[in-house]
Amino acid sequence: MTDHGVEIAEITVTGPAGFEAGVIQARPHFLAADGCLGFALHRVIETPDTDRLVVRWRTVGHHMVAFRASGGFQAWRAAVAPFLAGPPVVTHTRAVDLG
Amino acid sequence: MTDHGVEIAEITVTGPAGFEAGVIQARPHFLAADGCLGFALHRVIETPDTDRLVVRWRTVGHHMVAFRASGGFQAWRAAVAPFLAGPPVVTHTRAVDLG
Repeated sequence: MTDHGVEIAEITVTGPAGFEAGVIQARPHFLAADGCLGFALHRVIETPDTDRLVVRWRTVGHHMVAFRASGGFQAWRAAVAPFLAGPPVVTHTRAVDLG
Repeated sequence: MTDHGVEIAEITVTGPAGFEAGVIQARPHFLAADGCLGFALHRVIETPDTDRLVVRWRTVGHHMVAFRASGGFQAWRAAVAPFLAGPPVVTHTRAVDLG
């Protein structure tokens, strides 16, 4: 396992199209953030009002400490706030080396 | 969005090392399955007894219909059953095209 951490923010949305537009608007703030290595949006097939933002970070600290304190995070929350049915549920994962 | 579906099986385990060995043992059954495009194991950093099996399938049906009815699925369940704290929670996702 590396030190990298993948953020998974599971988000129930009130409107997938509006939320998606907010994600597109906020994406540059993630991609410009120190330690951000990639950004994608996945939609749960069984419950299409559930999206998962998948952001790869150099370390969990780049997300939880640096980005959370940045203007980029404020911009992200402002862009998507109208479309959140509840608070995002955030976890981080690491790939397990299966040899 | 493509027709591809990524299976995410969230699994709370009784022992990460034993579960990991079971995953390594079962991996060939996934990789040999019709429509399986990739296989990985991710561990949740905040709750290390929670793993997420991430399997890419050509379609959801390749997983839920064909693989679930196969001997490979039985082999997978046999390999990891001793290490499951509860039933896996399975969802499928598709990447959203953000343009």
